[in-house]
Amino acid sequence: MTGVHAAHTVHSTHTGWSRDFTPSAVITPGETLDFTILDASGGQLSRASGVSDVTRLDFATVNPLTGPVYIEGAQPGDALAVELLDFRPSGWGWTAIIPGFGLLADQFSEAHLIISEYDARTANFGGLARIPVRPFTGEIGVAPAEAGLHSAVPPRRTGGNLDIRDACQGATLLLPVEVAGALFSVGDTHAAQGDGEVCGTAIESPINLTLRFSLRKQANLTYPRLFTPQPSDRDRDRLGFDCTTGVGPDLHAAARDATLAMIDHLTHEYALTPQDAYCLASVTMDLKISEIVDEPNWVVTAAFPKAVME
Amino acid sequence: MTGVHAAHTVHSTHTGWSRDFTPSAVITPGETLDFTILDASGGQLSRASGVSDVTRLDFATVNPLTGPVYIEGAQPGDALAVELLDFRPSGWGWTAIIPGFGLLADQFSEAHLIISEYDARTANFGGLARIPVRPFTGEIGVAPAEAGLHSAVPPRRTGGNLDIRDACQGATLLLPVEVAGALFSVGDTHAAQGDGEVCGTAIESPINLTLRFSLRKQANLTYPRLFTPQPSDRDRDRLGFDCTTGVGPDLHAAARDATLAMIDHLTHEYALTPQDAYCLASVTMDLKISEIVDEPNWVVTAAFPKAVME
Repeated sequence: MTGVHAAHTVHSTHTGWSRDFTPSAVITPGETLDFTILDASGGQLSRASGVSDVTRLDFATVNPLTGPVYIEGAQPGDALAVELLDFRPSGWGWTAIIPGFGLLADQFSEAHLIISEYDARTANFGGLARIPVRPFTGEIGVAPAEAGLHSAVPPRRTGGNLDIRDACQGATLLLPVEVAGALFSVGDTHAAQGDGEVCGTAIESPINLTLRFSLRKQANLTYPRLFTPQPSDRDRDRLGFDCTTGVGPDLHAAARDATLAMIDHLTHEYALTPQDAYCLASVTMDLKISEIVDEPNWVVTAAFPKAVME
Repeated sequence: MTGVHAAHTVHSTHTGWSRDFTPSAVITPGETLDFTILDASGGQLSRASGVSDVTRLDFATVNPLTGPVYIEGAQPGDALAVELLDFRPSGWGWTAIIPGFGLLADQFSEAHLIISEYDARTANFGGLARIPVRPFTGEIGVAPAEAGLHSAVPPRRTGGNLDIRDACQGATLLLPVEVAGALFSVGDTHAAQGDGEVCGTAIESPINLTLRFSLRKQANLTYPRLFTPQPSDRDRDRLGFDCTTGVGPDLHAAARDATLAMIDHLTHEYALTPQDAYCLASVTMDLKISEIVDEPNWVVTAAFPKAVME
């Protein structure tokens, strides 16, 4: 699909989600649009940034979304089908520990920053690892029905900050429409991320997009669905995985335990600092629910692909 | 590794975990043992079973474990390293909805049974789907330090019913030792399972094993770890995935929502009954934590491999 372009490009950005935003484009089902996407810092960080720039981030302007797009005929109860036709990666991205944010925020209080440069296949993750590139849309959704301005940080049933790493080129996403016209927006593109995004950031990277829109009338979905024709990223899994686990009655605590054990493993196995290991886990380690039926204890497995350290 | 055999075979089985069981074998680190493994029903179900046999299951004898093995020199604080050298699959297995058990036990109150026959590569899942075979040890662990008899149903930090699908041939598992001699046991072998094992059972199948044991002195692990040299199962992922999601502040509820949406999807897309769809999800759908950082809502994605319906 690479090279697909639309006649019209959406540039306007907004912060948060609202049913009251004025559309920046109005289209009919079947149409294709290009989107200019800012990184999650809204341009506050660049290739030249240092860790002090992380501590100076203005959170009022992070997580900018490009849109909203009004799709004619979209009504509550419909699903908006979004085909992810083309991704045009910028070639660089950032990964940060932002104090107060992340699965282990209580244990990592200092800011940290890793800049990656990447080509079509691999990201040089700050000289520490070689991460297979798999661009996807971190934040993609439609406006919630509830009145008011809603933070773009938490995802919801209308989508938003889903961070589903399979939302990559070639996939189709179905979003539950809650307001007339749907009011679709997208942002927070990532060059690579592991399932969980444990430190709170992926390889955050501006990546322009071409998307096509259609409607599935009265699909009445409870939550978003995604269809991807692609296999898992085989550059990443080819040498197998080192896995740690957490076991217990609370999945969140088990995920924390598995992540802490992985940081312990990576620091010993590869002589990484805990901060670098935490960021590396965020961009390439997957959190999986191995079992959720053997009461009262569930198992979360954290899987780290050995190929990235080759 | 196929064809590796040890000089000695462990046949004895027990129910539950206890530090007080008499060892059925005593070995030194570096030794290899064969294990004869019963299926999770302890032989109560067979190729010829029907759903009425599920309703008559005697739960006092389910989840039999083969062992325990006393490893000389193993002490609390050590890790027992178990190399999974060889799996000898029986070629058949069962998957059941057992009333009162499973992630959606409140919604599936009727017993259900699907018998699979499989070869080295593929299981014929009751004529409904073709599931890539990936034999692994559902239950594998060492005795907990706490006195008394402990159910074999829940896993714990000493392992047990981990249901980690990467515990397959070629992998090495590290188990935290809590008692002298470790007292290792294994059982509940599966021919295939998805991450989560949502209906409570996998393709439950007797599979004999050859395992090699060694010690990592004073590794002081918090939980089990697993190292696998293998990529993900590529027979399964090659046509991509249909994904459903659950979004909210509770990972368990999100996993339920994603699974319910997948059953809805499978029943509509492939004209399966809800019972068959639930069992199919259990043996091949993966529950992943897509993000666990965008407070207050997390995302669980359920991924179903399209190749199994080809």
